[in-house]
Formats: sequence, C-alpha cells, structure tokens
Amino acid sequence: METTPSASYSITVRVELQNRPGMLGQLTSKVGELGGDIGAVDIVSAGDGLMVRDLTMKCRDEGHAQALVEGINQIDGVKLLHHSDRTFLLHLGGKIEVNSRAPIRTRDDLSMAYTPGVARVCMDIHHHPEHAYNLTIKKNTVAVVTDGTAVLGLGDIGPAAAMPVMEGKCALFKEFAGVDAFPICIDSKDPSVIIDTVRRIATSFGGINLEDISAPRCFEIERALDEELDIPVFHDDQHGTAVVTLAPLINALRIVRKEPQDLKVIFNGVGASGVAVSKIFMDYGVTNIIGCDTAGAIYRGRTENMNDMKAWYANNTNPNGETGGLIDVIEGADVFVGLSGPGTFTVEMVKKMNRDAIVFAMANPVPEIMPELAAPYVRIMATGRSDYPNQINNVLGFPGVFRGALNCRASVINDEMKRAAAYAIAEVIPPEELNEDYITPTVFNKAVVPAVAKAVEEAAERTGVARR
Amino acid sequence: METTPSASYSITVRVELQNRPGMLGQLTSKVGELGGDIGAVDIVSAGDGLMVRDLTMKCRDEGHAQALVEGINQIDGVKLLHHSDRTFLLHLGGKIEVNSRAPIRTRDDLSMAYTPGVARVCMDIHHHPEHAYNLTIKKNTVAVVTDGTAVLGLGDIGPAAAMPVMEGKCALFKEFAGVDAFPICIDSKDPSVIIDTVRRIATSFGGINLEDISAPRCFEIERALDEELDIPVFHDDQHGTAVVTLAPLINALRIVRKEPQDLKVIFNGVGASGVAVSKIFMDYGVTNIIGCDTAGAIYRGRTENMNDMKAWYANNTNPNGETGGLIDVIEGADVFVGLSGPGTFTVEMVKKMNRDAIVFAMANPVPEIMPELAAPYVRIMATGRSDYPNQINNVLGFPGVFRGALNCRASVINDEMKRAAAYAIAEVIPPEELNEDYITPTVFNKAVVPAVAKAVEEAAERTGVARR
Repeated sequence: METTPSASYSITVRVELQNRPGMLGQLTSKVGELGGDIGAVDIVSAGDGLMVRDLTMKCRDEGHAQALVEGINQIDGVKLLHHSDRTFLLHLGGKIEVNSRAPIRTRDDLSMAYTPGVARVCMDIHHHPEHAYNLTIKKNTVAVVTDGTAVLGLGDIGPAAAMPVMEGKCALFKEFAGVDAFPICIDSKDPSVIIDTVRRIATSFGGINLEDISAPRCFEIERALDEELDIPVFHDDQHGTAVVTLAPLINALRIVRKEPQDLKVIFNGVGASGVAVSKIFMDYGVTNIIGCDTAGAIYRGRTENMNDMKAWYANNTNPNGETGGLIDVIEGADVFVGLSGPGTFTVEMVKKMNRDAIVFAMANPVPEIMPELAAPYVRIMATGRSDYPNQINNVLGFPGVFRGALNCRASVINDEMKRAAAYAIAEVIPPEELNEDYITPTVFNKAVVPAVAKAVEEAAERTGVARR
Repeated sequence: METTPSASYSITVRVELQNRPGMLGQLTSKVGELGGDIGAVDIVSAGDGLMVRDLTMKCRDEGHAQALVEGINQIDGVKLLHHSDRTFLLHLGGKIEVNSRAPIRTRDDLSMAYTPGVARVCMDIHHHPEHAYNLTIKKNTVAVVTDGTAVLGLGDIGPAAAMPVMEGKCALFKEFAGVDAFPICIDSKDPSVIIDTVRRIATSFGGINLEDISAPRCFEIERALDEELDIPVFHDDQHGTAVVTLAPLINALRIVRKEPQDLKVIFNGVGASGVAVSKIFMDYGVTNIIGCDTAGAIYRGRTENMNDMKAWYANNTNPNGETGGLIDVIEGADVFVGLSGPGTFTVEMVKKMNRDAIVFAMANPVPEIMPELAAPYVRIMATGRSDYPNQINNVLGFPGVFRGALNCRASVINDEMKRAAAYAIAEVIPPEELNEDYITPTVFNKAVVPAVAKAVEEAAERTGVARR
C-alpha cells in the first residue's frame, strides 16, 4: 500500500520561474497532483522577468522524488536549476562532533587542561582508579558498538555503511538524555574478536550500547562483555525493544482490564528482539506465549528450522503445546506482537483473536498489518510508525535507561532495571488520559527520560548494582 | 631550583574573615610572604561582622599549596572554610563532550537523522564506500590512541590514568584546528593486540594519532598500522616533536648564519623522540649528529646498552666515530638538543660549545639546563616551558598537521609533509621579527594552524598521497 509522504524523503527543488501571474500556482498544483507535500516556499532571487524559488517537499520514496522532479521540469515556463535531498544534506560531514567542555584560550587554561597540570590528575587516577569516574568523561560516556551485520532492516551492510545509524544513535543519546556517545564500528564478524576489541577499549566508557548485531552472535557477545566488564552492557535491539514494548502492554491491559496471567500472546518473529520481548512479558507475568516463525508455531519437540534460541523458546513458552501456523494459533489470542515483516498478519487472522484484541505490528516501515485494515477487529493497535497513534519506538527507552545507569554508576543493567523502565514509560500517561489511541507517550514527551532514569536508578539501588 | 608559581597548581581558598579594617591586608600579605601569587579575590557573602571570600592563587607545587593553606589557617581572625584545586575542578566530568551537529526536535528531524531516512544514507555508503568521507564524521575525526605506557614523564601508568592527557589532546585538536578527536585507551601492552584493536575500530576515523606509547613498541605499532590502514597514522611523540623542533632550528640557523651541513649537533636522549628529531634534522641536511645516552656517545661498534633503535642510530650518525661522554663530544658543537632529563647539561659542558651556540633543552618541566645558567654561553636558547622565550611545544604541530591531512584526505603523513609543516611553523615569524628570543611562534599564534595545514596539504598533493 502507498505510504504517506515523509520528511525522510524530502527534497528541495530550485526552479527559475517566468515572473508572471499564475506561475507559482501552476507549479504547486503540479506538485500536489503528483502527490508531493509542499513545505517551505522561499524566494532566492527576483529580476529580469524571472524569479528563482526553492520549494521543499516531502515525497513517498526515491522513485516518487524522481517523478516529482521530472514533472516539475516539464511545466512550461519553469526551469529546474537543481534539486537536493534534504536527508543527504543533513548527513554531510556527519551528525556528531566532539567539543572541548572548557575553552583553551590562555596559557593558564593550557597548563591546567594539559601539561603540566594534567599530570597530577593522571597520578590521582593512577593511585585511585575509581576517581576516573569523576575526573574523566567516563561518567557520562557510552560506546555505541556495532559490526554492521543487522542494520535496521538492511541486513549485513558492514561497519562503514552502519555509521550513519550509529551516529544518529549518538545524536539521540545527547539530545534526549545528555549522554555523550561515540560510534565504534568493528570491522570483524567474529564474536570473540568483537568481545576482545570492546573489552580493550572500554576504559573511556561508562557503558556499552550494542546495536544492530545479528543473532545469535549478539547473545554471545553481550553475555561475554556483561561478565567481563564492570560497566553496563545493553543490546538495544533486544532489551531496549523489550522495555518500550512492555510499556504499552501495561497500559493496554489497564484499558481492556485483563491480567497478564490470563493472556494468550502470539509473537510473530522470534529473532533477538522477539525473544527479549517475550522474556520481559514473562517477567511481567504473561504465561501463555506462543512464538511463530516461517515454519509456524514453536513448540517443545519441533525439529524443523530450529536453533539454540528457538530451542530455549520451545522449552519455555507454549505451555499447551499448540502447533500449526500463525492462522491456527492466533485463535482466541488476546495480544499479537509482530517483530517480523510487512503484511505477514492478515485480516483473516486478526478476526480470529479474542475480544478486545491488542495488536502491536512493529515491522518498519510497513507493519505486519496496516492499522486501517486491522481497525474493525482490534481494540488497541500500535506500530513502529510515527504517522499512526501509539508509536512503539526505542527512543523512549535507551536514553533514559543509560541516563539512570550512568547516574548511579550501575555495574550492569539487570532485568529489574529494565522492568522499572517499562513501568516508568507506561506511567508517564496519567490514568485519566489513557485511551485506546494513547497507550504510550510520544518520543518528544519531555517527561519520559527523567522518569525512566529515576526508575532505573532506584531499581539499581534496590538490587545492589549501583555504585554511588 | 625553585619554580615559578603556575596556574597548573592554582587553588581557590574560601575563608571567613572578621569584618574589620586590615583583615584582607593581613591575609594577602601572608600569602605573598609564603610565595603565593594571588589572582582573583571575590566576596561570597558579608554580614554579622563576618565576610566570606574566595581567593584564587597560583602555587609552585602541591607542597607549596599545602603550606599556603596551613599558613592562611593560622592567621588570627581568619577561618579556613575549604580549599579546592582549580586543575581538579576543571577536570570534573572530563574535558570533552559529544554533541549532535543538528538539533533533533521534531519528527521530521528524527526521520531524517535516524530511521527511516538514515537507511538511504547507509545504502549509499554500502554501494559507494568512498562516500563515507562525505556522509559520516570520518572526514573530520581522529582517534587519539594510547596504551598508557609512556604518559608525559610519568611512565607506565596504564590506560585509565592516561585518559586526562588523551582528553586534553582531543580538546586541543578541536580548539586549535576544529578537528573532532576521541580518546581510545587500550588495555593491553601487546603491540599485536594494539595493532589489531586499532585496525578493527578504524572505520569511524579519518586519522590515527598515537600518543604516549613506549619505545620500541611504538615503532612496531606505527609501522604496522601505517601499512594496514588507508588513513594517516602519526605518532605525535616522535613526529610531532620532530616537526616542532626542526622549525626553531631553521630559524636559529637563519640568525647565526650557519648551514645544516656544517653543523655538529649533539642529542642527549635517543628515545623515540630523539631518534625522530635526529631523522628530520638529517632530512633537512644535518650530517654530523652524535647521540648520547647514559652510557655516553653512540658510535658504530658500541656494545654497551644497545637496542635496535640505537643500533640504527650507531650506523647512521656520528660519521667521525666520536666516543666518550657528553662532556667530550659536546666540544665544538653548534647545537645541543636535550630530550632527556632535568639538569643533565652542565655549565661546564655548554662552555665547550662552538660560538653562537644553540641549545634546545626540552626536558619538562625542568630542562637539561636552566636558561639563566646557560645564558652567558649560548646565543639562542629554547625550552619546553612557557615561562621562558622560545617554547618548543607539540601544540604547534599536530593540530595543523592533521587539519591538512584531513582536508586533502591524505592516506599517510609522509616525511615531506612533516618537513613542510616545520617550514610553515618557522615561516610564521616574519624575517624582520626574527631574533634570538623569537625563533618559534607561540602556541596561541592564530597563524600557525592554517599555515601548517596548507603546507601539509600541498606536500600531500605534491607527493601523490592526497585523495581529494
């Protein structure tokens, strides 16, 4: 189905118009006719019967942008000078920078920030290693680590091509939670090499955010680093997704007045994120979870298309040993969680769910089922998209989780801290505002990060992993 | 000998004074008597016959600071509330931060800087790896890499204690040359581990600045990385020092009207920096160089206290095979270069030098010979200190060298680029201003970095290593 024009595909077109009445109208009408969504219209220069204008417009995708450019170029009296892609413009030179926190303008500044003054600070850390937290960037700095093997939905595109995502993550860390983050893209796919590399450069950092590392390698890497390092290690694709998915479940259950132990929950997609979300749901009290992959329901004793992760899943979920395809096990389900691919959940399936059905269709950008199609049959619907209600977005989780962990110098981010984060996100919405279209706060809600950070800190103290 | 009070040892003392005439005078007199150098005097609060003031004062060292605090505390009518070390205050929370280059305040911002827009940028880099230079931070970002084995004059204090120096270096990179730099402190002393680690995380960076890695390991690490990576690798302790030492030699020779091929140059200290400075001097045309270590002059055939580096030195310097101690070979020398320890060059030695003697006594903070002692016997004297004329400081070199290398996307920083940098630094001083006390520009001279960057870029283009 056709997507809505979006800023992520916006272009700026510079055109020379003959300066006569109606020209701009012809141009804007043409753009509208072709489905472009015009934002700013600026005058660049005017004179000699000609006017140069910049038009910024949102498009649906690259093909649509191309069609718009060609359409504009064919209008009589309009000369296309050039067009530029705003997303690429934004990326020129990268998205983050490293700045000095204090100016170095005089000899006195230099003698304190660098030699000879700095030597005393070094020796202080040498004698009191724990002072590194106060006297270096460690207390506020996180490494965003990837090997580029599972970047967004793009797959194994390698460390260099992964950089824009990692830089974006670092920018979000700072903008949302004041955390300094730096991208470390590792040029190896060998888990032991990745583990060794991160362990050896961990000195600068107070936490490690693993990102877009493919399963099952991500499990081994996370487990080893978590054991070996005394700073938190958090694979956001797993645990961040788990946190931001439990939050809307908590609120959805409040609306439909169901209890976790009474639910039948179907997961479509049991990759790293599917397993992590399943686990946090189980911690929350959900007992009847059934996972599906392309071979259908996962059950104890299944032999087709298995791996270690699915073996764990088979042994710990599906208590009634249901078998068959998604179309079979969805019968009577209260909750559907999609972490799979576009269009994999059909109207026929959604119709078979229990009353007050809850559907989280999180495939991006095209969900397992579009909200318009599911609407008649579900009570509560959430997606990963910003253009529908109830966007489930990791940006609600990782900034506050790390803010809290850094604030209290947590040694790990444990399950209790993750659950506390999910509750905190859920509770940002006051009970009187809670409704079917508002079960999770928006990413720009300023209350989220402080609430999550506080809850994570408290949980760290409660569980004895805070070190401050 | 007693050092001058310095900002690097400055403290702020908060005192409660009885509010009567003459109290402040008593206090400041006492500080002066004890050798403290008072800067700001601020009122914190006043009332009830008491006044609280903050006094900021420079001290000579930690013992002196302690003596000042105790002296102040003994004054009748003065109560010491607390005192703080300004250098430590400056280091609280570290010296650098990572910021987003563009705000992320709206859904549109988010959809361009992160998903879904970022996916197109990733795929563009995946298909055109060279676009990483335009679309990521690579084009302006340098790793400052250490293992903490040779930090300043402090020795092997480890990666955590090295952080304040590395952060300081990163701050200088930004403040002086607009280069984004990030500290990578590696927790291993094994050269092959360090090489592998840097190679695997090089994706984010457009250059590698090696720092404070002990010899001879630094040679192996630099050589391997230089061969394996397609971005410049530069060990500042070697090549940065070489660049900033050749510059004042060039200018000193202009003043004394001597040619490099006619000089006798004595090096005291043939560690990594001594060898690198010797090599750049040789490239410049100096033929008669003699290096001394604690066992005396290095000559072909010497067997005592040798290593690979000194073997190279023995085979490539000292063409006349001079032997003996520093006191012997200094006879008739035109230039003395000290990269060793405090007080190792005596008046007796300096007296034996040729007319128009040039002495670069670069041990820090206490030089091989103090300028006051050497003055009667030398024409030109330089040190590493900011409180005497002619400070030889690496801050004159590395910012402009990397600025130039990044500007032209150089694949390496070769010898021609290093020499060009030295010439550029020397030429910042106009011929008419050149004199015995002004052979090298000060670190805050704004002309240095652009001049060095331009010269380095031109040399890169001339030698075919520029890629832009």
